[in-house]
Amino acid sequence: MPGNLSRQIEFILEIDKLKAVLRRTYLLTEKRRENSAEHSWHTALAGLLLAEHADLELDCSKLVKMLLVHDLVEIDAGDTFCYDRQGMEGKAEREQQAAERIFGILPETQGAELMSLWLEFEACQTNEAKFAALMDRVTPLLYNFHGKGGSWKEHGVTSAQVRDRIASVPQISKTVEAFLFNLVERAVEAGYLEE
Amino acid sequence: MPGNLSRQIEFILEIDKLKAVLRRTYLLTEKRRENSAEHSWHTALAGLLLAEHADLELDCSKLVKMLLVHDLVEIDAGDTFCYDRQGMEGKAEREQQAAERIFGILPETQGAELMSLWLEFEACQTNEAKFAALMDRVTPLLYNFHGKGGSWKEHGVTSAQVRDRIASVPQISKTVEAFLFNLVERAVEAGYLEE
Repeated sequence: MPGNLSRQIEFILEIDKLKAVLRRTYLLTEKRRENSAEHSWHTALAGLLLAEHADLELDCSKLVKMLLVHDLVEIDAGDTFCYDRQGMEGKAEREQQAAERIFGILPETQGAELMSLWLEFEACQTNEAKFAALMDRVTPLLYNFHGKGGSWKEHGVTSAQVRDRIASVPQISKTVEAFLFNLVERAVEAGYLEE
Repeated sequence: MPGNLSRQIEFILEIDKLKAVLRRTYLLTEKRRENSAEHSWHTALAGLLLAEHADLELDCSKLVKMLLVHDLVEIDAGDTFCYDRQGMEGKAEREQQAAERIFGILPETQGAELMSLWLEFEACQTNEAKFAALMDRVTPLLYNFHGKGGSWKEHGVTSAQVRDRIASVPQISKTVEAFLFNLVERAVEAGYLEE
């Protein structure tokens, strides 16, 4: 087996583990927590579908790749609940180590490319990274809204926290942002989210 | 909310259902069957990583999109086990109807684009469709091999059936094909697969 293929197959086997990393969000179809692999699929497709609403130019191919790999570090570092302050401490360091090990399985050039995509996502400075970060907020908000509170209620999350989480993404799509802020308002009105 | 966004959000909510469609394959990390959403994520990434082994030119961005949507029809049509002859009857018709309903949720142009990608995948004539079909064989084979027989044993699948399944993909990557045929040989030797 050629060297590249051997390392690529090892990586493909390794990332099976992302399917066992559970997020806080509950699915709508089944009453179970979402795993990070299916979440990555969902956000990648959401990115592809909603890209037309970006206010600045996007490289869609890069956006989709970024969303496919954005949570791979959770294989080692676990999913950190975004509203858990304590958990957020040390997150960057844990994830950096994870990225080095996991992307290090791949052939060097390919591993470096994915590492750089992941770092770009984390830095949230480019148009693609900003839009990816926004997509990362879309499905959890939809789930919690349509699940009548879902993990917001379970963890006592307030509307201010959810608004901060949306606002933490540098502006990239007025349309999607407005939709999300409106969803928060409707969630408060419906009693799904504490004011 | 702009009309396009409203239909796109409806679609994003709808496709949550793919996470409840179970395939026959067992994961390696957890002893449970894989669902079609996490499978779609896995094959999309596999496509991205292994594209360099294609013998003909590939449009990677199209390949990844195709793999992200290739199983969406299973929301209505269910996952048909590829070694189940009876199940394969009427599959095309069931899936065509499903595609019309599901892609029909989207704004017209976008829905038509995804429909056409899915039809291209099914027809398996273009380089991207052939490579996508090959990727669709990679992870199940890896799972069954590393799971010491997994769903092959459970359903009495033979090596001839697995070889036919690989050979049914028009030639697109000698390297990946050789790897898969070799895996079948090793599976027979190890007693994971009946000759």
